[in-house]
Amino acid sequence: MTSERPNLLVPRFAGVASFMRSPVLADPGETDIAILGIPFDGGTTNRPGARHGPRAVRDQSTLMRRLHPVTKRSPFDLCRIGDLGDVAVNPVDVAATLAAITERIAEILAAGAVPLSVGGDHLVSLPILRAVGRDRPVGLVHVDAHSDTWDSFFGSRYTHSTPFRRAVEEGVLDPHRTIQIGIRGSMHAAEDNDWALAQGIRIVTMDELREGGIDRAIAEALRIAGGGPTYLSFDIDALDPAYAPGTGTPEIGGLTSYEAQRLVRGLGPLDLVAADLVEVSPPLDVADLTALTGASLLWEMLCLLADARIRRDARAERS
Amino acid sequence: MTSERPNLLVPRFAGVASFMRSPVLADPGETDIAILGIPFDGGTTNRPGARHGPRAVRDQSTLMRRLHPVTKRSPFDLCRIGDLGDVAVNPVDVAATLAAITERIAEILAAGAVPLSVGGDHLVSLPILRAVGRDRPVGLVHVDAHSDTWDSFFGSRYTHSTPFRRAVEEGVLDPHRTIQIGIRGSMHAAEDNDWALAQGIRIVTMDELREGGIDRAIAEALRIAGGGPTYLSFDIDALDPAYAPGTGTPEIGGLTSYEAQRLVRGLGPLDLVAADLVEVSPPLDVADLTALTGASLLWEMLCLLADARIRRDARAERS
Amino acid sequence: MTSERPNLLVPRFAGVASFMRSPVLADPGETDIAILGIPFDGGTTNRPGARHGPRAVRDQSTLMRRLHPVTKRSPFDLCRIGDLGDVAVNPVDVAATLAAITERIAEILAAGAVPLSVGGDHLVSLPILRAVGRDRPVGLVHVDAHSDTWDSFFGSRYTHSTPFRRAVEEGVLDPHRTIQIGIRGSMHAAEDNDWALAQGIRIVTMDELREGGIDRAIAEALRIAGGGPTYLSFDIDALDPAYAPGTGTPEIGGLTSYEAQRLVRGLGPLDLVAADLVEVSPPLDVADLTALTGASLLWEMLCLLADARIRRDARAERS
Amino acid sequence: MTSERPNLLVPRFAGVASFMRSPVLADPGETDIAILGIPFDGGTTNRPGARHGPRAVRDQSTLMRRLHPVTKRSPFDLCRIGDLGDVAVNPVDVAATLAAITERIAEILAAGAVPLSVGGDHLVSLPILRAVGRDRPVGLVHVDAHSDTWDSFFGSRYTHSTPFRRAVEEGVLDPHRTIQIGIRGSMHAAEDNDWALAQGIRIVTMDELREGGIDRAIAEALRIAGGGPTYLSFDIDALDPAYAPGTGTPEIGGLTSYEAQRLVRGLGPLDLVAADLVEVSPPLDVADLTALTGASLLWEMLCLLADARIRRDARAERS
Amino acid sequence: MTSERPNLLVPRFAGVASFMRSPVLADPGETDIAILGIPFDGGTTNRPGARHGPRAVRDQSTLMRRLHPVTKRSPFDLCRIGDLGDVAVNPVDVAATLAAITERIAEILAAGAVPLSVGGDHLVSLPILRAVGRDRPVGLVHVDAHSDTWDSFFGSRYTHSTPFRRAVEEGVLDPHRTIQIGIRGSMHAAEDNDWALAQGIRIVTMDELREGGIDRAIAEALRIAGGGPTYLSFDIDALDPAYAPGTGTPEIGGLTSYEAQRLVRGLGPLDLVAADLVEVSPPLDVADLTALTGASLLWEMLCLLADARIRRDARAERS
Amino acid sequence: MTSERPNLLVPRFAGVASFMRSPVLADPGETDIAILGIPFDGGTTNRPGARHGPRAVRDQSTLMRRLHPVTKRSPFDLCRIGDLGDVAVNPVDVAATLAAITERIAEILAAGAVPLSVGGDHLVSLPILRAVGRDRPVGLVHVDAHSDTWDSFFGSRYTHSTPFRRAVEEGVLDPHRTIQIGIRGSMHAAEDNDWALAQGIRIVTMDELREGGIDRAIAEALRIAGGGPTYLSFDIDALDPAYAPGTGTPEIGGLTSYEAQRLVRGLGPLDLVAADLVEVSPPLDVADLTALTGASLLWEMLCLLADARIRRDARAERS
Repeated sequence: MTSERPNLLVPRFAGVASFMRSPVLADPGETDIAILGIPFDGGTTNRPGARHGPRAVRDQSTLMRRLHPVTKRSPFDLCRIGDLGDVAVNPVDVAATLAAITERIAEILAAGAVPLSVGGDHLVSLPILRAVGRDRPVGLVHVDAHSDTWDSFFGSRYTHSTPFRRAVEEGVLDPHRTIQIGIRGSMHAAEDNDWALAQGIRIVTMDELREGGIDRAIAEALRIAGGGPTYLSFDIDALDPAYAPGTGTPEIGGLTSYEAQRLVRGLGPLDLVAADLVEVSPPLDVADLTALTGASLLWEMLCLLADARIRRDARAERS
Repeated sequence: MTSERPNLLVPRFAGVASFMRSPVLADPGETDIAILGIPFDGGTTNRPGARHGPRAVRDQSTLMRRLHPVTKRSPFDLCRIGDLGDVAVNPVDVAATLAAITERIAEILAAGAVPLSVGGDHLVSLPILRAVGRDRPVGLVHVDAHSDTWDSFFGSRYTHSTPFRRAVEEGVLDPHRTIQIGIRGSMHAAEDNDWALAQGIRIVTMDELREGGIDRAIAEALRIAGGGPTYLSFDIDALDPAYAPGTGTPEIGGLTSYEAQRLVRGLGPLDLVAADLVEVSPPLDVADLTALTGASLLWEMLCLLADARIRRDARAERS
Repeated sequence: MTSERPNLLVPRFAGVASFMRSPVLADPGETDIAILGIPFDGGTTNRPGARHGPRAVRDQSTLMRRLHPVTKRSPFDLCRIGDLGDVAVNPVDVAATLAAITERIAEILAAGAVPLSVGGDHLVSLPILRAVGRDRPVGLVHVDAHSDTWDSFFGSRYTHSTPFRRAVEEGVLDPHRTIQIGIRGSMHAAEDNDWALAQGIRIVTMDELREGGIDRAIAEALRIAGGGPTYLSFDIDALDPAYAPGTGTPEIGGLTSYEAQRLVRGLGPLDLVAADLVEVSPPLDVADLTALTGASLLWEMLCLLADARIRRDARAERS
Repeated sequence: MTSERPNLLVPRFAGVASFMRSPVLADPGETDIAILGIPFDGGTTNRPGARHGPRAVRDQSTLMRRLHPVTKRSPFDLCRIGDLGDVAVNPVDVAATLAAITERIAEILAAGAVPLSVGGDHLVSLPILRAVGRDRPVGLVHVDAHSDTWDSFFGSRYTHSTPFRRAVEEGVLDPHRTIQIGIRGSMHAAEDNDWALAQGIRIVTMDELREGGIDRAIAEALRIAGGGPTYLSFDIDALDPAYAPGTGTPEIGGLTSYEAQRLVRGLGPLDLVAADLVEVSPPLDVADLTALTGASLLWEMLCLLADARIRRDARAERS
Repeated sequence: MTSERPNLLVPRFAGVASFMRSPVLADPGETDIAILGIPFDGGTTNRPGARHGPRAVRDQSTLMRRLHPVTKRSPFDLCRIGDLGDVAVNPVDVAATLAAITERIAEILAAGAVPLSVGGDHLVSLPILRAVGRDRPVGLVHVDAHSDTWDSFFGSRYTHSTPFRRAVEEGVLDPHRTIQIGIRGSMHAAEDNDWALAQGIRIVTMDELREGGIDRAIAEALRIAGGGPTYLSFDIDALDPAYAPGTGTPEIGGLTSYEAQRLVRGLGPLDLVAADLVEVSPPLDVADLTALTGASLLWEMLCLLADARIRRDARAERS
Repeated sequence: MTSERPNLLVPRFAGVASFMRSPVLADPGETDIAILGIPFDGGTTNRPGARHGPRAVRDQSTLMRRLHPVTKRSPFDLCRIGDLGDVAVNPVDVAATLAAITERIAEILAAGAVPLSVGGDHLVSLPILRAVGRDRPVGLVHVDAHSDTWDSFFGSRYTHSTPFRRAVEEGVLDPHRTIQIGIRGSMHAAEDNDWALAQGIRIVTMDELREGGIDRAIAEALRIAGGGPTYLSFDIDALDPAYAPGTGTPEIGGLTSYEAQRLVRGLGPLDLVAADLVEVSPPLDVADLTALTGASLLWEMLCLLADARIRRDARAERS
């Protein structure tokens, strides 16, 4: 029923643009999976614009249809899915915004819904993890060109280069269950990734990925994250700028869109409890290509989250 | 209260994009003025893309604030304003779409609300007028580069070049209370505008407008349309393509954005009962300039409609 | 001689843009291969603009030189090649346009020429096949992200999602000699491709293609289409949007341009009797990238058609 | 008849793009007015791209219809008009190209046709004038942001900054019958325009134009050029870059498109014997705005040339 | 000598891009007028990108030549002019950045040079004024679509909507010698401009400007600012978005580029001691149009500042 | 020290844009590696714009950081690196420009520095090689879609299609130590590459590269170029236009950015004495993608040159 919905009756380009054409809701309690925007790029030290990401991804996400082509399942048949709107960010106040994000994610979790967030720059992952990992640190599959584990940048400890370091320090992220895939690009210093490695974080560089192939990277992700609750954070700059030019810190030599799709699909076995897509910067985009790619990967994540949710619900019912 | 709403609390670039950040509603009965999209360009004989107009205008309209700078009044303080979503058009069936538009507008009118429509190509004005002028023919202020009173085009009587001829023929539009402003551009034949003139339609060409100035064009519009119920139809190609490049049939030598603002503002005395903005074609636009200009003029129309509505309500109360 | 022609004497950016800089002709009898445009997107249920495809492909096709780099043969040495202009489509009348297309293709075939068409949206393949398969159903190699075998869309049986279903039903296309390569993307319903499979159409999804490699897909195409007369239909959205952003229904995870070249080249053994390139939508393009890619693939098809034509002529002569 | 032609039967976006949709001809003898492209920017000392001007202007010119909105006359009813293709320029040889241009224009003149040329950079006016002014120096109305009367630039006497100085020196241009309108912009040296003034050339700067209005500039042009044979050279950078961004040497503070139309229309009384439109640079353009503006002004020039031609023919007949 | 410099020897598109092709210097003491960039948009509450302004304006400023077309004087002959590079802003720390700006401007002033700054968003005017008005409050000519005298925005007192309120409160700006020109656009509340008016600031709205003409606005600016030291702050959004689309908060109905030029030129009599150009946002620009317009107005300001500087130096010498 | 420099203190988007944020110097003697621009496209026979390459590459190069991610070494720690500005080209004089380039490169070499040049079109490689190969012919690794060994084009022997033929003829390039990688695209004539092959040049077509993989192409390059002094010339059109659309003669089916990175990195063992990056054409680019890709490859080359330089210096010291 839900899955038979609008695309065949009302053209996909029509109507108010919500994530995946799902209903716009204020109350997370009406959803099993809550998609929300976090239009904040106040942690950006380089080229801005990711604050416009949620709206552009919403627009392109209306091109998505209702079933996954491989699983032949529809997340809309499995779960109640809603667009929760955007977090009320403050464009000139980082601290206030981080607090607002954590609070909103906590509300969603408290309502029993799974949050799927669209940034915004990568700093938004930190306040999300503060809510998601509040009770116990979660595992992480982090797809990105950059490790984002700097201690500080321009003297600030809260930028889009530092979220995962803070998350480990704050005990909401388990470094031994964390893997970073797609890392590449020129470095500020030879020590750039040393802290991450010292914490036990597993880094799969693009060179390793190209050597071993995408399937080995998937296997490694499944091995590292294991069976515990896991967060998925996808920075669109993991893709090559030919596939995703609209991002603040592009690095050539990245993933193709097929590899990105396959990588996300391969994470099906994980117990994903929340996810985000970040760093889509529409003012830097062309022909909405990056927003389309982001929306398409968001769709893959939505399907993953729906499957994981169903499994958890089934387990809970059985026990 | 309504007017204090969101812009100072939530950034204008945030949230699901609705017209003027007004609430998205299904029931026109909850509104005094109903803004709706009509994403249809099936009447376009030249360059398409106006089907994407409503979404792009929604996006840019969120830049608008709450009060008019000249009147210092806010339409949100005067009326209940809602985004009614888009009409369920059929991109491959003109007849079905025309019927759906008329039906939707009639619903809105029946609910006591004033429809403010965003196209779509100019053919959408015809089914709107069929509802608006059902009981008695309305007057019309039509701002456009083209008269759109052809009999047929490519053998079809229902294209974006013919709506006002059909409307006169069908008795929903009063040609003696109709004025067309901004007409210009190369002609198909010397007779292009003869039918319109023969019906008593007043045409103010760009040359006449430049000679007499915008204020004389306004005076003429007020004189022609007079005190009866009047429709306002604004084709964005009335503006020069420097101000509005994103439209299917651009004609150089058009209005500036200031002239367009002033022209619309000057129509304040009219008893406007409905209005539309048409022919914004986002795929042909650059930097959202045309959508911004369209949204800004839509804002002016909204203020006009709110004022007219209030006057009618006051008159009704008095009597 | 013909192959020594203009590129070294007159710059490729100069002159009226015709397909491959070939002469503009009205009479198909003066050609062995007739390249023609079909500027119609009236079957488009999503984002329009393919009506502008022929002109943009013409423009970029002037960058092509005269010989194929692998075969070292020039189609201009093998055949008389001409630009037959565009079919006189009617942008607001689907039925009239379908008839006009069939009639024009039939004229070309009657004159003994091989038609190579540039759309327009994918609906144009149906009226072409009506002429090409009039006497006996043809085989088909169909490269596309979508199967285009829906029964109807928005209540219409004639849209760019339905041409090949109609063609099978009408007996102009042999489903057992039909292969679809590159299929992918989210689905409307689990049954989306069931009809096609039930008819015996062979579908090679992108996943199968990535598993087996492009050469296995080619082998499969040769096996399925076999030795009979075969049509080649290439939808530019078979390519990844990084390579072809300017199309109405993009799907990430598609072919690279090298794979597309190699795939077309691999079809050399087939008895191709006609071909088309569709769904290039210039208003959605950037830097003419999609038009360039389309023109480059059109060039590959032209070389294929010339070779096939020569073989047929030689066979005819021998017998 | 000619004027009833294609626009109502075949959409304007269809077909091979020729200037004003006129027939593509090789022989100037079949025309009264010969429109031709000169795709050469080898005289450009700043930003290149004008070599792509003719093709882009052809494309946009197909949006023009058949009659002039003020005169209600169609040049196609008055004259035989053809697209003569492009001059066979050599992109790496200035001297050879200048010779080729002069030769081609001379051919056209010898055939009794009036040449209307589309550049290319402004250097192309020199070889045109060499043919047009061969027998007696012509007058000139030159609309431009720059005087283009430098002696040399980067040591070269043949650049797009020098054509009119060379033309005066060579005796093909009469400086006393020359007027330059729209001149503005920062200067290389205080003497920039001294040579021109010393020759008797009349310069109407933008400041003078804004003071006196466009009508006074027209009157001055008519006074200066007088009754003798006159050439019209229109550099698109005379317009403000808001109206014509796609040009190599933009200067803010320029003409609006309406002023440009009106200025050209005001030259109706002159005995125009040839004209050009130059410096449209498509790679620097957005949304084809400059090409559209250029095509629209080319249309105005075509109407002027047709009227002037008819007057000359009538005079010749009378005498 | 300086004025004979590079444009005729080295093409304007060549070389490292510095402001007006002036030498890049570290020491303000080597200059009379110091042009510097302030790449900071951390005060932006709407659409970001102005941090990229300085580099884009530098690039386009190399198109400027050496002499002013009206005065025939070259600032390079009057003064030593240098590009001082950019202030070392901190993209994630507003307070630190404001301090760094004030310090750098103070250094420049201490060295006896006149600072001409390129933003960045409008917040940068505050720290500049803190240095410029340190000893006595300065007058201000403020050209802008917005008054920028809000008390706070999103709870912050330091945003691009508040600089001039802070400057008045801090005693570095004299409100009675302050004029704001070009104000327009929808309002947040009826009180938006009340504070400014109450302080004695003179506001010339676009409506007043269009009524009285640009010359009356100039006269008013000269009257208000009078003979004391005056600051000129030019927000590019004073121009209509057709002329300057690349800015964060565009408002239709604005100045043309000619009006902007004329307005700046008209301020010649003022004793300008510093100036800025702000809110050019390259990621939102098209075809570098806004950067070009900004650079062209920066050139006008440079000429003004050079003239004012010379007058002050002459006065100092005489006394 | 040098490597700790600016990126962490001053944002990468700030400041005057120099190559890799290195100091702008006039004297090559202050550098070990001199990066310089050659803004000349006077050898371009097709689409121009490469004259704007150096400035766009400078801009994007400021996104590069300080260390290579694989070697963990910083060229800034190994060598003194400077931006030498642009060669003083003459846009309208090929011969003068070629002489100026050779002279400037010779100066750099005489000062003991290694030149790393950014074009400009490919003709600039010839005058560079004249200086680099003056004493003995050098080897060449040439990455490109085209062989650029034509004898003449449009009658000229000095175009961007002929540099390497001239270099061999002039004895500055050793054909037996020359390899061309990435060659593809339609041909003018079957003999296009015959001359190159006859000289002993090794051509690795894209087909061969795809068959054997990038590592075999690297091995072949190392084998051919051997241990002698070698030049590296990288034409950005070697990449697929999806990765590098901004170039004058794009050919689909090219390298990915990862392959390009890997190819350059694989050349580490060679004794590289100079290198260039050519054919980045910003007016044809989108979202600076091609300039970014070019800058990223320039960074790889810089790292290679620094390593090679250090090895040579060490060898010299030892002997």
